[in-house]
Amino acid sequence: MNYTPTTLLPNQEIPPIAGFRLSTVGAGIKYQNRQDLLLVHMEPAAVCAGVFTRNTITAAPVKLCRTRLKGGKASALLVNSGNANACHEPQSTQAALEISAELAKQLHIPQEEIFLASTGVIGAEFPTQRVVSQLPTLQKNLSPHLWWDGAQAIMTTDTVPKAAFRKIRLGNHEVTLAGIAKGAGMIHPDMATLLAFVFTDANITPSALQTLLERATAQSFNSITIDGDTSTNDTLLAFASGLAGNPLINDPDFPEVWPFAVALHELCRELAHAIVRDGEGATKFMTITVEGAKQWQEAKQMAMSVAKSSLVKTACFGCDPNWGRILAAIGYSGVPFSPETLTIYLGETKIIENGQMAAGYTEEQGQIVMQRPQITIRIELGIGTATHTVWTCDLSSEYVSINADYRT
Amino acid sequence: MNYTPTTLLPNQEIPPIAGFRLSTVGAGIKYQNRQDLLLVHMEPAAVCAGVFTRNTITAAPVKLCRTRLKGGKASALLVNSGNANACHEPQSTQAALEISAELAKQLHIPQEEIFLASTGVIGAEFPTQRVVSQLPTLQKNLSPHLWWDGAQAIMTTDTVPKAAFRKIRLGNHEVTLAGIAKGAGMIHPDMATLLAFVFTDANITPSALQTLLERATAQSFNSITIDGDTSTNDTLLAFASGLAGNPLINDPDFPEVWPFAVALHELCRELAHAIVRDGEGATKFMTITVEGAKQWQEAKQMAMSVAKSSLVKTACFGCDPNWGRILAAIGYSGVPFSPETLTIYLGETKIIENGQMAAGYTEEQGQIVMQRPQITIRIELGIGTATHTVWTCDLSSEYVSINADYRT
Repeated sequence: MNYTPTTLLPNQEIPPIAGFRLSTVGAGIKYQNRQDLLLVHMEPAAVCAGVFTRNTITAAPVKLCRTRLKGGKASALLVNSGNANACHEPQSTQAALEISAELAKQLHIPQEEIFLASTGVIGAEFPTQRVVSQLPTLQKNLSPHLWWDGAQAIMTTDTVPKAAFRKIRLGNHEVTLAGIAKGAGMIHPDMATLLAFVFTDANITPSALQTLLERATAQSFNSITIDGDTSTNDTLLAFASGLAGNPLINDPDFPEVWPFAVALHELCRELAHAIVRDGEGATKFMTITVEGAKQWQEAKQMAMSVAKSSLVKTACFGCDPNWGRILAAIGYSGVPFSPETLTIYLGETKIIENGQMAAGYTEEQGQIVMQRPQITIRIELGIGTATHTVWTCDLSSEYVSINADYRT
Repeated sequence: MNYTPTTLLPNQEIPPIAGFRLSTVGAGIKYQNRQDLLLVHMEPAAVCAGVFTRNTITAAPVKLCRTRLKGGKASALLVNSGNANACHEPQSTQAALEISAELAKQLHIPQEEIFLASTGVIGAEFPTQRVVSQLPTLQKNLSPHLWWDGAQAIMTTDTVPKAAFRKIRLGNHEVTLAGIAKGAGMIHPDMATLLAFVFTDANITPSALQTLLERATAQSFNSITIDGDTSTNDTLLAFASGLAGNPLINDPDFPEVWPFAVALHELCRELAHAIVRDGEGATKFMTITVEGAKQWQEAKQMAMSVAKSSLVKTACFGCDPNWGRILAAIGYSGVPFSPETLTIYLGETKIIENGQMAAGYTEEQGQIVMQRPQITIRIELGIGTATHTVWTCDLSSEYVSINADYRT
């Protein structure tokens, strides 16, 4: 494959991407003594695409982005942590519009090309003036090198910043993709909000970028679960400056696009995995694959049923090869299947064959797998050819402490 | 209303019900030094009805009961704890058939009139001989008075036995209903199995009993959740001896049937509530009502979305009036609604009005409610007239300990 996969640690450099400059500042929105505001300036205006929360109740920035995405052009992205700017209408929408208008004025760009994202407290008044007063500083400090600062500024109770990049070649042109994300943070009274932003210098149409982003999301951000709760603020945005100079990508299914599609998919998956690994209280990374299903939607539904089971997740925390719980979660998933052709592997160990405990399986074998920091559950239905994989973490006593005790 | 509601403590007597005799014994199926086997003998043969788990994977006794229910007649019920008799085929089914055949021979009744239920370890070999060898003792000790012994014999990690009764008058006839249940028990490698059995001397047809039992279940056992996991063994059976001598109930919608329908509903709800109160690690009893919905199914779906949210449940454990989490769970429930007409009450305190934080609400008001052992969340959608209530418990660190640490 014609690209270089890269897994990053926070001390590793993410290269500049032509067309994007970043800056961060501490606006004291909720946190003190840390950066909580990120500006990404895009010059020339970038092509953009986005995927948002399916929650019926959405924050003001989500509403604003959904509308502006129709224009397909972006000149700036402003992200804050510490306040979700949600459920405090009409002030929430007013805050979003006021900040956007002020930023447009200072950057001399159309308001419709400004995108916003927020994460933090729901229902609290948004400190508009604190943000507006920092816009000149943000504008002054723009730099193409501040990816890790950006990843840190959008954190809530994430314990590590999350960023990744890929470099690929499309014909003679080198194309770079970089992404930052934040995940399972909990701030009163918030839930695990997922924010992720992808930047590339690829030359691509908005509709092709949208299609490829949605496909990548289905196999990454939409295939992870920490606790089954969906935020009012979940936002994934992708921006493409076009400055790599590759021939315009306008057909997402054109074979030449494949390296870009794979790199985007991998980038999203790497960020999604980083979010799961940093899930609240997580001690284990769990991969759940359903194979041999009739449709991938059914494979996903069954995999998610196992991934969301509190009993499976506590068993993983306790290193307990409790296959009865896996079997039960499969059984109540709502997906039709035949127990007679059901096979389940825990790691490399076959635990269920034809719906019964596999001959020769011993609990000691199961326990060896369950004691690992990464646990794989593979479910073979034997009734079709569709497959899907989801990722989750275990449910630990630390999860309950984080979500119940933080106020006391 | 023409009946006597009764809430019981274990030292309170449940009256004999004509036609039913019970006995219990310790068979050492898994536990030592306790009763783990319950026989209920019905003479004359009782009319019966049942509701079972919706899990695709079911235990051998569930399959057997489903088949025999078609006959509509029951002469004996045998229940064991300590082994679910599931997922160890063909031995599971062989064990169920062998025990049933042996019991039929000893009691001189047709095999088809014997009902079985099991709760405990999934996938383990069933100790058929230990059970068979106790059948003579069980038969010898039958008594109309052993309701609490029966409730104790079917417990797994329940901390208290669960039983209830109602006495009503149908015309000139006194009718008694009694029920026993077990709930959120966890035995390796099992999940929270719900077993409940209702006995009455009412004179009723099998189809009327089935209809009334299903209606009562919808508003009781099917409206509770501990952790969202559905067992392979969940079983609710109702038996009616007919010895009260009331005019035969054959139309469940006949007005004269109303006291019986209400008593059955209340009995099921009382047992369901007892299961929630004794949920694993539970410290709080939560009632979630959705009103003003278009259909009751949608009201239930939304109430369950809130009841199953790990974030709402941990907030209740932590006494945190975290209304953002309630709002989010409503938003991702999949039920269409309008935030503009949404009102939410926490106890008697209005926290959300028109989708926003209610004017005058203070966090102190919310905390007063959240510190109570019983917490009520009332959601008014304002788009219809349908309503539904569900019950759950909080998610505590004790829940994780019970389900992760019991082996270590």
